[in-house]
This record gives sequence, C-alpha cells and structure tokens, in this order.
Amino acid sequence: MSNHFYALIMAGGVGSRLWPLSRQKSPKQVLPLVGDRSMFQGAVDRLQPLLLPEDVYVVVGEEQVELLKAEGTGIPDRNFVIEPAGRGTAPAIALSAITLRKHDPEAIMAVLTADHFIGDAEGFRDVLQAAREIAVQGQLVTLGITPSSPSTGYGYIERGHHLTNANGYAAYQVVAFREKPDLVTAKHFAVSGRHSWNSGMFVWKVSRFLKELSRTMPEFYQQLMEIEAALGTPAFDRVLHEVWQTVKSQTVDFGVMEKAHDVAVIPAEFGWNDIGSWATLLEILDNDAQGNVIRRAEHLGVDTSNTLVFGHDRLVATIGLHDMIVIDTGDAILVCPKDRAQDVKQVVDQLKQTGKQQYL
Amino acid sequence: MSNHFYALIMAGGVGSRLWPLSRQKSPKQVLPLVGDRSMFQGAVDRLQPLLLPEDVYVVVGEEQVELLKAEGTGIPDRNFVIEPAGRGTAPAIALSAITLRKHDPEAIMAVLTADHFIGDAEGFRDVLQAAREIAVQGQLVTLGITPSSPSTGYGYIERGHHLTNANGYAAYQVVAFREKPDLVTAKHFAVSGRHSWNSGMFVWKVSRFLKELSRTMPEFYQQLMEIEAALGTPAFDRVLHEVWQTVKSQTVDFGVMEKAHDVAVIPAEFGWNDIGSWATLLEILDNDAQGNVIRRAEHLGVDTSNTLVFGHDRLVATIGLHDMIVIDTGDAILVCPKDRAQDVKQVVDQLKQTGKQQYL
Repeated sequence: MSNHFYALIMAGGVGSRLWPLSRQKSPKQVLPLVGDRSMFQGAVDRLQPLLLPEDVYVVVGEEQVELLKAEGTGIPDRNFVIEPAGRGTAPAIALSAITLRKHDPEAIMAVLTADHFIGDAEGFRDVLQAAREIAVQGQLVTLGITPSSPSTGYGYIERGHHLTNANGYAAYQVVAFREKPDLVTAKHFAVSGRHSWNSGMFVWKVSRFLKELSRTMPEFYQQLMEIEAALGTPAFDRVLHEVWQTVKSQTVDFGVMEKAHDVAVIPAEFGWNDIGSWATLLEILDNDAQGNVIRRAEHLGVDTSNTLVFGHDRLVATIGLHDMIVIDTGDAILVCPKDRAQDVKQVVDQLKQTGKQQYL
Repeated sequence: MSNHFYALIMAGGVGSRLWPLSRQKSPKQVLPLVGDRSMFQGAVDRLQPLLLPEDVYVVVGEEQVELLKAEGTGIPDRNFVIEPAGRGTAPAIALSAITLRKHDPEAIMAVLTADHFIGDAEGFRDVLQAAREIAVQGQLVTLGITPSSPSTGYGYIERGHHLTNANGYAAYQVVAFREKPDLVTAKHFAVSGRHSWNSGMFVWKVSRFLKELSRTMPEFYQQLMEIEAALGTPAFDRVLHEVWQTVKSQTVDFGVMEKAHDVAVIPAEFGWNDIGSWATLLEILDNDAQGNVIRRAEHLGVDTSNTLVFGHDRLVATIGLHDMIVIDTGDAILVCPKDRAQDVKQVVDQLKQTGKQQYL
C-alpha cells in the first residue's frame, strides 16, 4: 500500500454568493449548477478511474455531512471527516491528514474542493497523476492554472527554476505566493509567463505535509497531536470538540504554503474556474446568440444580452437588460448587475442580521 | 330632469403595458394599482356626491363587462353599454351617447376613464361642476391639465381667448389640439402658459355632441342612427353587431374634437396622471427615502434607488438597481429599466404571437 493515492474534497461552506439558490439546507455543493449532477457528485465523478470513491475523503461541517452522504457518490461513510466548526483550510486539511495517516501512514493526498468547475476532466486527472509522481519525491505540489485573463479574484503563484517533469508536465520551484493583486499587477502577472492562478489544490505525502505543519504552525500542531492521540478511542469526539474550540482560523496558503520548503507548482490548463458567484456561471455556462444563459426558466427577452436567468419553471420577461443576473427560486428573487455579483453576500448578511431564517 | 348630469366611464382595454399584473381576466381597471380599491371602483367613488352610481354609465367590451359588474360599485346593470368590439373612443362614446339620449334627451355627460389617477377628488368634482355649467351653454368642454413637466407622452391643448368663468374656474376657447410632441416642442408647451395636457376627459350636452358628430363623422353617424333606431327593440343586438362590423376605428380627439366648433378648455390641476405604464406608478405611488416604491413584496435592497417592486408576498432582493422595475405575479416575473416601461407591450405582443395564452 506504499504511496497509495487519496483525494480529500473540502466540502464545507454554503456558498452564500450563490444565494438565493444556495441555502443552509441546500449549499452550493449539492446544487446542480453546471450539469445535471451536483457540484459534489461532479467532484467525485471526475476523479475516476484515477481515484475510486473508497479512496476519496471529505471534510465537512456537522450540519452538512448528512446531505453529502445522501448524494450517492459511493464514498464510504467512514471517509467523511467532520469539523466541529469552520476554522479555515489549514485546520480542515490537517484534521483530514491525521485521519488519513492513521489509515495509511504512506498516503499521498490530493487536496481538492467541491465547488470548482473543471471543463477537461481527463486533463485534470493527468495533472493529478503528474503531481502525485512529484509528491512521491517529497515536494509539496500546488496546481497552478495558466491565467486566461488578468483576474483580480484569484491569488497567484510565482515560479522559479524548473525542477522536473512527470507524466508530460513540468514542475517548477515556487518563488512566492501572491495575494489577490490589483488590476495593474494582475495584468503584469497574466503575461509574465511566470505566474499561475492559485487553484487551492495541492498534492503531497501526508507525512511531509504534517512535518511542514509542525514547523510552520507549531501551536496548532500541538493541538492537532492531542486530537490524533485520541483517534480511534471513545474520547475522540470529546477531545476533538474541546480542542477545536481553541483552534485559530488559518488558511493553508498563509499558514503553511508561504513558509514551507520544497514547494513545487505544476502550471496547467484544464478549463478550471472557481464558481464563486453568479457572474462566474454566466461566464462558463453555454449561452445563446445574445450571450444569455437561461437555466430552468421560460425566458422572454426583448433587447436582452449577456444576462443570466436562473429560474423556477415560470416565465421571466426581461427588457433592455445587459450584463444582468436574475435568479428566481420560488420563495425569493434576486436581481443585480453582473458586476455586483460579489455583493450577494451583503444580502445574506442582512438576512442573518434581521433573523430572516426562512431565506438562509 | 332638464340638464341632469351623468358620467360615462370608458372602461375597455386590458392595459397591456401593466403586464404581467394586467391580464385578460384581470385587466388594469380591476387592479388595485393605487390604493386598496380597484381603478374602476376608484373612478366611481371619486364622483360622489356630485354623481351617484345610478347616474354613471360604463362602456366596456363583452369580455370584461361581468368583471366590472361584479366590482360592487352600485352602478345598475342597465347602465353598462357593451361594445361588440373596440373601435376607438369616438364610436364608444357615440354608442353611449345614444343610449343616454334615449334615457334623457337633455342629458349632460362627462366622459371619463377608469384608468386615470386623480389625487384631489374634491378638486376634480369642482372642475366637473364648472365644466357642466359651461356645457349647459352649448360648449364642448375639455378638461386640460396644467403641465407639471414637459411630457412627450400626452397630447396638448392650445387655448385662445377667455370665454367665461364657472364655479371658480376659467374656460378658454380651444385653438388647437396638438398630438404628442417631441421634447423641444414639449418644453416650449410646458412653459407657454397657453398649453394644457389633453386629459381625454370631456363634458357636453349629449345632443350637442351628437350634432357635432353628424357634421365631423357623417358616415359613422349614419351607422349610429341605424343602431339608435333599433334601441329598445328585439332587433337591437343583431343590428348593433352587424353595423359594428363595418364601423371604422377612430379617436374622439381626431374624429370630432379637432374639427368641432365651440370647443372650450378648462385648465385645471387635480393631481391627474394617466397610469399608462409601470413608470407612471413609480412616479405617483408613495416612495421611501431612496425613492423606491415597494408594493406587496418583502424587499431587501442593497444600493437600490428609484426602483418599483410590485411583488407577490415573497422576498425580492435587489443590488445596484437604479430606475428599474421588478414585477412578480407568481407565475411571471418582469424586469426592465424604467425608461423601457413602454416596451412591456412588446412582451405581450410576443406572448400573443407565440400562443402563450396562460400568460395573457
């Protein structure tokens, strides 16, 4: 079982910028936003035949685990790692890593998410296979996406010298992780030939990651070891909940990757997109001659272009709309310009503040 | 019963620019667009105590007469004049005029409509009383509205010399009826001191109107006399339907008023507005601090101003909307900028062309 390959799918969160479709009881991951299958099903499907469902782990909150188990992906219930509360990606991955280490100390793990769009599944698996071969050599491998635009919505990875090749892909030393840049900087990055988007996907030996974690987040690592000591004992749940209350939130990028040694990046293209908002769906879904994307609505458009209508099996008539978003979920309607799609989160925040639980 | 005063309310049409709220089975007239009472109820209510329901006549199409009778206005069923088909305002008024002449040859009639907003009902009745006194002297009186803006959506009436005063109002000779002007002309009219909006409301002796009709529309007048000859006989329905098939469409403005003698105008202000589109409702209904008008919706607005939300008891969230219209009727949703409100008719036309009867 030496160097067996596993995937961890991070599936927490609601995806509040996809409100009113995403709700606490129907988070983004279980929505069929792209095809007929949910985002979570799609994330599992596209791994086969490289990774079978029994080799896929999932980290998720208590309130969503049953929803995901019910998705019929074939992932065994024991592979669901339950976070007592969201603490960012570093603790989520670390908790999964000790779970996986107990199952297989030699494990190689790919850290993936449930809410990305990937157009070329075969190309994606090829990159994962390449990353696995490089991770076996001890590198912490990040998947970089060759920029198709000067996006200010993603972090960037700057690469240095060429390290090695695997499965037809080149891997490079990582020089720096760059936070989401301003537009001038993004325009520079997009054409530099040295920068990739940070996809948030990683491949590494579990043992190598945990070693790096002990160096970069020593305080959290002590907490994690308390939890690991209780793994498989009757005290596990109690210890996990107690320790987790004192764990600080941290991202794996900032907490680990930016300070880590031997970090490699594989620049790749496989039609990747972070479905972060309705504006992204307008970009990636099939559109008609006017650039409109119509899903589940009977749409009648007069002078309407580049508009997303996500409906509820009823008529939506639009006149003079351009670059707009109209979402109808039966109990709620959202209307906003495409370039305000990020602000949907403000609506969700206001609904929380005013206690409108029925819409959350 | 000499010179008794009657009102005719023109209540035909669907009001397709108020789709999706206005439908064939719930036309504009029966909608509570302004207050809690329907437009038609409001039109009858505001005449009291000047005119009681038994003195109010209604001209309407066959498909809508039962809807209006069911509105509980107190108007006797015999006062409903049924047009076999819409032929414009001249034939509709003429058919009502002969009905009224049979009931009372000395009748004074006010021609009104069911789909106007009138903010000052008492002032409106005062103007009607003034117009009645001037109509008794033989004038065809039009009610002119003192322009509050250089509107290009209304026709204008140009006045000449002062004729007389009645009930505190001045009446002037009419020099010309002007079609809806372009903006430059409208700006001139709005400040000339000689132009009023043409409200489409008139007051005259029935006998005087019919005499003028015989001169200005002689061909139609002959047809009308055939119908009048059958009034009160068993042949009436057959004759009316047969003759009506050959009647040409004509407006009373173009067919009669522009060519008539002794036409007077009473310039007045009583908070009048023709509720022709959603944009008008946005103007006349009470708005909040951001200029938004919210009716029957639970609205959550982020950076939203001058926007009309007409809802269906569900949540409507808007972000970054300004001067927009969002209408939700349960089975259909309309979204358009305020300045495209006239084009709602295009949606209705397309629904007709594609046979989407359930939305008409």
